[in-house]
Amino acid sequence: MQTSVTRLSADAPDDTHALVTAIDRGLVDPFKIRAILGKTEGNGCVNDFTRGYAVDALTKILAVRMGLSTEEVEQQIVFVMSGGTEGGLSPHWLVLEAGESAGPSAADNRGITKSLAIGTSFTRRFEPWEIGSYEQIEETRRAVHQAMQDAQIDDQADVHLVQIKCPLLTKGRIARSIAKGRPVVAHDTYTSMGYSRGASALGVAIGLNELNERDLPEDIVCKDYSIFSSRASASAGVELEENQVLVMGNSSRWTGKLAIAHSVMKDALDLQALGDVLSALDIPQGLQISDEARSRVKAVIAKAEAARSGEIRGARHIMLDDSDIPASRHARALVGGVLAGALGDTRLFVSGGAEHQGPDGGGPIAVIAAVN
Amino acid sequence: MQTSVTRLSADAPDDTHALVTAIDRGLVDPFKIRAILGKTEGNGCVNDFTRGYAVDALTKILAVRMGLSTEEVEQQIVFVMSGGTEGGLSPHWLVLEAGESAGPSAADNRGITKSLAIGTSFTRRFEPWEIGSYEQIEETRRAVHQAMQDAQIDDQADVHLVQIKCPLLTKGRIARSIAKGRPVVAHDTYTSMGYSRGASALGVAIGLNELNERDLPEDIVCKDYSIFSSRASASAGVELEENQVLVMGNSSRWTGKLAIAHSVMKDALDLQALGDVLSALDIPQGLQISDEARSRVKAVIAKAEAARSGEIRGARHIMLDDSDIPASRHARALVGGVLAGALGDTRLFVSGGAEHQGPDGGGPIAVIAAVN
Amino acid sequence: MQTSVTRLSADAPDDTHALVTAIDRGLVDPFKIRAILGKTEGNGCVNDFTRGYAVDALTKILAVRMGLSTEEVEQQIVFVMSGGTEGGLSPHWLVLEAGESAGPSAADNRGITKSLAIGTSFTRRFEPWEIGSYEQIEETRRAVHQAMQDAQIDDQADVHLVQIKCPLLTKGRIARSIAKGRPVVAHDTYTSMGYSRGASALGVAIGLNELNERDLPEDIVCKDYSIFSSRASASAGVELEENQVLVMGNSSRWTGKLAIAHSVMKDALDLQALGDVLSALDIPQGLQISDEARSRVKAVIAKAEAARSGEIRGARHIMLDDSDIPASRHARALVGGVLAGALGDTRLFVSGGAEHQGPDGGGPIAVIAAVN
Amino acid sequence: MQTSVTRLSADAPDDTHALVTAIDRGLVDPFKIRAILGKTEGNGCVNDFTRGYAVDALTKILAVRMGLSTEEVEQQIVFVMSGGTEGGLSPHWLVLEAGESAGPSAADNRGITKSLAIGTSFTRRFEPWEIGSYEQIEETRRAVHQAMQDAQIDDQADVHLVQIKCPLLTKGRIARSIAKGRPVVAHDTYTSMGYSRGASALGVAIGLNELNERDLPEDIVCKDYSIFSSRASASAGVELEENQVLVMGNSSRWTGKLAIAHSVMKDALDLQALGDVLSALDIPQGLQISDEARSRVKAVIAKAEAARSGEIRGARHIMLDDSDIPASRHARALVGGVLAGALGDTRLFVSGGAEHQGPDGGGPIAVIAAVN
Repeated sequence: MQTSVTRLSADAPDDTHALVTAIDRGLVDPFKIRAILGKTEGNGCVNDFTRGYAVDALTKILAVRMGLSTEEVEQQIVFVMSGGTEGGLSPHWLVLEAGESAGPSAADNRGITKSLAIGTSFTRRFEPWEIGSYEQIEETRRAVHQAMQDAQIDDQADVHLVQIKCPLLTKGRIARSIAKGRPVVAHDTYTSMGYSRGASALGVAIGLNELNERDLPEDIVCKDYSIFSSRASASAGVELEENQVLVMGNSSRWTGKLAIAHSVMKDALDLQALGDVLSALDIPQGLQISDEARSRVKAVIAKAEAARSGEIRGARHIMLDDSDIPASRHARALVGGVLAGALGDTRLFVSGGAEHQGPDGGGPIAVIAAVN
Repeated sequence: MQTSVTRLSADAPDDTHALVTAIDRGLVDPFKIRAILGKTEGNGCVNDFTRGYAVDALTKILAVRMGLSTEEVEQQIVFVMSGGTEGGLSPHWLVLEAGESAGPSAADNRGITKSLAIGTSFTRRFEPWEIGSYEQIEETRRAVHQAMQDAQIDDQADVHLVQIKCPLLTKGRIARSIAKGRPVVAHDTYTSMGYSRGASALGVAIGLNELNERDLPEDIVCKDYSIFSSRASASAGVELEENQVLVMGNSSRWTGKLAIAHSVMKDALDLQALGDVLSALDIPQGLQISDEARSRVKAVIAKAEAARSGEIRGARHIMLDDSDIPASRHARALVGGVLAGALGDTRLFVSGGAEHQGPDGGGPIAVIAAVN
Repeated sequence: MQTSVTRLSADAPDDTHALVTAIDRGLVDPFKIRAILGKTEGNGCVNDFTRGYAVDALTKILAVRMGLSTEEVEQQIVFVMSGGTEGGLSPHWLVLEAGESAGPSAADNRGITKSLAIGTSFTRRFEPWEIGSYEQIEETRRAVHQAMQDAQIDDQADVHLVQIKCPLLTKGRIARSIAKGRPVVAHDTYTSMGYSRGASALGVAIGLNELNERDLPEDIVCKDYSIFSSRASASAGVELEENQVLVMGNSSRWTGKLAIAHSVMKDALDLQALGDVLSALDIPQGLQISDEARSRVKAVIAKAEAARSGEIRGARHIMLDDSDIPASRHARALVGGVLAGALGDTRLFVSGGAEHQGPDGGGPIAVIAAVN
Repeated sequence: MQTSVTRLSADAPDDTHALVTAIDRGLVDPFKIRAILGKTEGNGCVNDFTRGYAVDALTKILAVRMGLSTEEVEQQIVFVMSGGTEGGLSPHWLVLEAGESAGPSAADNRGITKSLAIGTSFTRRFEPWEIGSYEQIEETRRAVHQAMQDAQIDDQADVHLVQIKCPLLTKGRIARSIAKGRPVVAHDTYTSMGYSRGASALGVAIGLNELNERDLPEDIVCKDYSIFSSRASASAGVELEENQVLVMGNSSRWTGKLAIAHSVMKDALDLQALGDVLSALDIPQGLQISDEARSRVKAVIAKAEAARSGEIRGARHIMLDDSDIPASRHARALVGGVLAGALGDTRLFVSGGAEHQGPDGGGPIAVIAAVN
């Protein structure tokens, strides 16, 4: 098996032109697509309909090309749309395909021959009262294992990122829950997004043995942020009710020149973390990576969040005090700028809301690159 | 003469606590202050009252400490408040003092002994109809020369940045102009800010011999952006009616360890420009500069602007299509992030609106640092 | 022929639940639908994708129910989505059907028996350089006549509102135009929306004999706002390239209890205009209309715009100086509040951008109601 | 004693021109000023510095005119700045003076001769951990009684509105509290504003015998919104640490033509409440009050809030789902529009955040008018 990653530009949330062209030219085989990650240009918060609009547009054209219904497309492919392209972030799709191949394998920096491996899974639909709860943690843990099997990765250490799309609470879902006498984790839609991401991330942490389930205190979700996964990246959206899981790692059972590496940014300026990732992928560093290096980078996935301390390296930030621009939008713009500078590229999948995904004010970062 | 630069944090636009403490501890001598540059946390656009609030707060406490009226303080000190601390930018003041000193001089990278030199000047008040006009260009040119004299800089090549605070048109000023039968350059306040910055920048360009006055086509302001200054940084604000000019350069008549260098960012990701500036100041580069290097950096001043092409290095940006967040706020967040990553610091004076200040989508960048 | 108007709630831009239910219950016959007007919850400005998302969702379910392709649905039905439900405005659809009927006619306040009549038409697609031009005016004029014929209205005086959906310029369309050497009316997308609405409104004005084509000065669009239509309501959107026209009037050839009346609000507080409309429909007025009266009101359509004078009845408004919230959002919130108070209902089709649609700061208002 | 109310326009938060002119013309006597209420054009949320800027500007010019220090001015006069002039709301000051007079008294609608009476008081400064606590309730209750004494109002029923300015928690204050081992009511600044307003309103409710202290459940603040005052209007601001209280009522010990009346809007569209207030003041109603009636209205004070139900009279509103515009801004725009329509005036003191100030989605409304 071999994975390929195609990065495509989007002129609007429903702009599928680049994908259609790629399929028409044989660059993308719709039947091999396992996941599409997308940065769309909404606000990334509650009333961001660009995510659902994008999924509708993508499934619509894929259904036509694949001779399937849109429902069938959505059952085969994981769509993770992350709203918010603040600063210079560029709306784009990351199309991940898996298919048979006889190509050579990538060698990791320890000389072991492993190539990028991906796997997907879906949890059952969550009831509104399960969002942010132990059930969501547990179902996610289970789904991570399923996706690892799908990716043929045995060792948790070989998993470098688990990307999750998870649901949120809407006024309607909250009302439905209350009508059934079941309390919800938050009465505010925006707040519920954090709980859903947080529970999902903890599910990943347990699934990857980063945390031991038994050590987990009760009522931990969005309470004790010192407990986190280094490899979870979760995005909440109104357009689904279950968790969709995409595991990305390296495996000796897969071939191809692509490999993935990850690290954790300790704060929004932690370029050392990026440096570690680049080193693991044998990409030479500098003030900004070279054109040659840049051509080898196929995808950059990172989480961004405003430090709750109100400070970055001792200097005050205003993200949490700004009632005009949500903090998550500031945070994406910042981390987007930090990474875009070092990488010379704005096509970065930087998503907001890093609850239990890396330390406060920081977050996981992963890069998929061609290894020479 | 010797210049000192003190960077102070601000917890709010009217938070003068750090300045008061610095004065009380003898770190800042109010009588030596020639200019205070500040990043304040407003939107940096029309209804940003944090700039005026900051000037009021600063002049109020300085008046008390100096035994002067606030009017007298404003006649002695140039206040350049730039609104907008998007992304991770940290609200801060840069206090520039000039005074006698017997300290050693900084040596530039060509071995010539020159130290940071500063000078200020004020134009006359502009009538509303003069904003964005040839009169504003010409008066600014003249004021640049005055400020150079004040800084004892003879050679235009020794000027590395001219920071200007310029007025804008308000509904009231527009009405006043029209009542007198004089058309204004723009009926929209926001648009007028660009014209005022643009005309000021062109005045700098002529004053520094970057442009020849005679070659300048008529009706150039905010029309032909290919014509620009590499050393102008202009900020518009509602709180003044004249142009206030601060010239920063290096001079052999000044002493001290501080020096300034500048370059032009060709686009928002152009870290090579920063690299050139750091080289000129003998600061070693890397993915991020070292703690030691960072301790030598005293001030970073840069302009940010959304590329009118709608793209950054071929990738689409959404800044100009976003009706929720003004483009200038996106641009500051982006350039702020790019520079904060490379420098490991968010206390950067990144201001928006770079009309005729560097190429489209780019802008001047200057660093003041201690040279070993 | 008889018109029916069904007002349906929307829980999201793609929430077609209420429409599906109405069809299932036989309350709406999809084959009779001539137009769907919708208020969607985007920002109503450039990056408002809720309009296109709504049209996609509506055409998708109508295509299924009607056994047509989505393209065929869009050729039969005029969709006018207006973004922006600021203040208390409630997202909703107005479904306008026309079909055969033997019911009694409404009598207007002059005793003549006329009932609500509707007609639709489409112009050809406009080239980017035609937006805001005389061609758009002329094509709109022609389309108004076509739609009047479709509505079987002979006398222009019987037309009470012409609702138009018109295109805007995107970066891509502008680039395409420039590539062909054709200048566009505006290089800014947001600005182009005003030109498109303005030209469309002038086309209505000429089509309804409010203006004489020969008296029209050249270069009038968005220049001289004292020239306007009292019965045009135009909405610009990224999701179409032609003008779509919906004529609403009263005709003795139609039957049914519904009738339409209109007036022009001279400013945002002009409830006298609403009073005139209510009188024409025999609806008793007061501080707020009664529950009985409210049950007779089927649709309210109004335009809102920030007065360029910067004042409302001598008191300053801040809409045009606010860089955080676009002026058109303030204006919709205000007019929405004014009308919601008087009518006791927030399901109002208040749309922004009233260029050449009523006087500065005001705009047309029309009410469809059941006449006893 | 006699009260006078002067309504003055403001062109900016620091625009004191109208006040200076009024003083110069003898229309306002600075030594008689007891309170200044102001609508300023910030966002009314956390980073709204227009409130503090306005207070600074007002105290500065009053200090000059009164020969006092700004501190002394702030000890004599209650300043209640409320940020947010969304929709068409017009920035303005309400200057309330109290002085000796021999004029005739107003007669209320029960024939009893009572005139507008005002009184002020200040609580002690609150510690950060007291915000939103029982201490704030209790201190407010006490201050209400003090202000009633000051106003010479004996009967709680004669109090028609208690306007309160209260503090909020900033990052700094929260840190200070935690450093002392004292938990705070909220770690989010915006949330703390609600707690401070809520506790203040409950203090008013107890002080006016609307609630019995003993019946009050523990942990009620911002928990059970069914418990509220009908006469409290609270505004939170960063610029103070104590509660400032302004009692407004009618008293037979005061003279003059002015009187106050109040009611409670049950929802944002409840114009019947306004009708009741107008009736109490003998002002004839209609779709919009007449010019003559309008000239008698001297001040309108109302609270606005987004209904937590997500609906207004059964129709969905989007205020609580909008991540671009805070809900309180939508709510002010809506109620501002509703009242501006009925009253024909946009100079309304509509403030947001009505926790325990009227029912969910509604709020108190009070009008001061000249009674014939």
